[in-house]
Order: sequence, then C-alpha cells, then structure tokens
Amino acid sequence: MLARELIDDYPLIRADDPALAAARMIGEQRLPGLMVVDDGGRPLAVIGGSQVLRFMLPGYVVEDPTLARVMDEKLADHLSRELEGKTVADLLPDKPAALPQLGPDDTVMEIASVMARERVPLVAIVNDEQLVGVVTASKVFSTICPAL
Amino acid sequence: MLARELIDDYPLIRADDPALAAARMIGEQRLPGLMVVDDGGRPLAVIGGSQVLRFMLPGYVVEDPTLARVMDEKLADHLSRELEGKTVADLLPDKPAALPQLGPDDTVMEIASVMARERVPLVAIVNDEQLVGVVTASKVFSTICPAL
Repeated sequence: MLARELIDDYPLIRADDPALAAARMIGEQRLPGLMVVDDGGRPLAVIGGSQVLRFMLPGYVVEDPTLARVMDEKLADHLSRELEGKTVADLLPDKPAALPQLGPDDTVMEIASVMARERVPLVAIVNDEQLVGVVTASKVFSTICPAL
Repeated sequence: MLARELIDDYPLIRADDPALAAARMIGEQRLPGLMVVDDGGRPLAVIGGSQVLRFMLPGYVVEDPTLARVMDEKLADHLSRELEGKTVADLLPDKPAALPQLGPDDTVMEIASVMARERVPLVAIVNDEQLVGVVTASKVFSTICPAL
C-alpha cells in the first residue's frame, strides 16, 4: 500500500490561525494532533496532541504536576490569557523538529517507521513542497493489521 | 474540572490479549493508544499509537525508514508473523515507563501536565490500585478550550 492510498480527510491548520482555534479543533474533532501549513499550503509542522499541551502550559507546570493542582484556577486563567491573541506559530517550538514527511509513492511501512521513530501520530505526504495529504497512525494500523 | 468528570468510555486491553487484536483495535476504533490492564483490572501501561508501532517494527527499520521501503513485502510478512502468537505484554517495553496515572479528584490541569510531560495521549485514573477510567487528550482540550 502506498501513501497516496492511505490519505485521510484531515483538517489543516495555518500557522497564522489563532492558537485557541487550534486547541478547540483538537478537542472537538478528537484529532491526534495538528497538521500546520503556511499560507501557501506548504506543510510546516506536525504536532501531536500531548506536544501541543506542552507548548500551552508553563514549563514549571509540565515539570511538576503538583504545581498544576495548587494553582488550578489561576492556571486556567493563565492559559486562556496566554492563548488569547497568540497564533499557532507561537505554539511551535523555536527549533521545530524535522517535519515528518514522505512522498505519495512511499509505502505504509515507511510511514510506520517514521511515526515510530519521530513518535508522531501523523505524517505529511508531500509532493513538490505541496501537501498532498495526511496519513494518521490509525490508518496505518488498519492497513497493516486489517480486521479479520 | 476533576478527573472523575472527564472519564471517557475507552476500551481496555488485557496484557494477555493477542497483540494483533490490540493493533486492530487501534485501527478500527481510531484510538490514540492502548490502556493495558492485568487480569484483575489493574492498570499496567499506557502506550501511544506511535509507541505501539515502535514495538511492532524491527529496530533497524525504525532507525532507517529507507530499509522499510526496500523490504516492504518481506516486512509486512515479518510483521504478521511477529505478531502471531504474541500478547500485548510482549509489546510492552522491558522497563515500562511509570504509568501515567492520577486520582479521580485530580484536576484537568494536572492531567494536562502529566500528558505534556510523559508525552502520552491518555492517562489512567486510578483509585485503590483499580482503574476508574481513562482521560484522553482530546477530552482535556475540549475542557480547557471549550467550543465558543
């Protein structure tokens, strides 16, 4: 099976979209992560849901969850304030990891391998720098281990 | 919001269930990962989808995706053979990471913090060593950033 056959209908988010909209999208559509593109539709980054949380929360809260309990109310306020006015680009790490990407003719095993190595739930399928589509980990599983 | 209010209906998998069944479950139900329990219902491990792929694939293929292309057909055979007769326990790392777990009265911020730190899409909610339920990252997002 080739990447082009595994592409799922997956919502894209632009780097200049509001960060709050991106966070809402993950919750509402139960997405495993974000596929971030620039305004020309070129893929910029894949971020898993837990990584988005990491970028949303203050570092000291990530390091010490008990702090999250102590400052629960304040933290919720802080988070909304932090996200207000920010864009998705502001959520990306300063040095983004290499974009997990493959071509339309790459195989499901290559996709599985990239997901396993980069520990991401999505890969971008790219042709001539343009995003052709997104393959999700659940699609990979249902391809390598089809239902009986 | 407390953990007890955020519990989703989430399928559990037992450590002695067939590994192939677990992989199929992720694909069919589009799960972000596996919640593994022992036969007494005690939580053992949370494994994200990309980690399951890592444990399924031979190490050299994870390190070098181009190998996955070269040996695509063989690899698919290998994978089915590898999974046949194995249990979920065989997919777990030898030294499993600490189970990401919290109590029913812990807050959504503590859950977010644990997910961000451990980089997992699920946490186990545990009381007296028994699993009370599972909270997913998408539930955390829809709680911290509710739809307008």
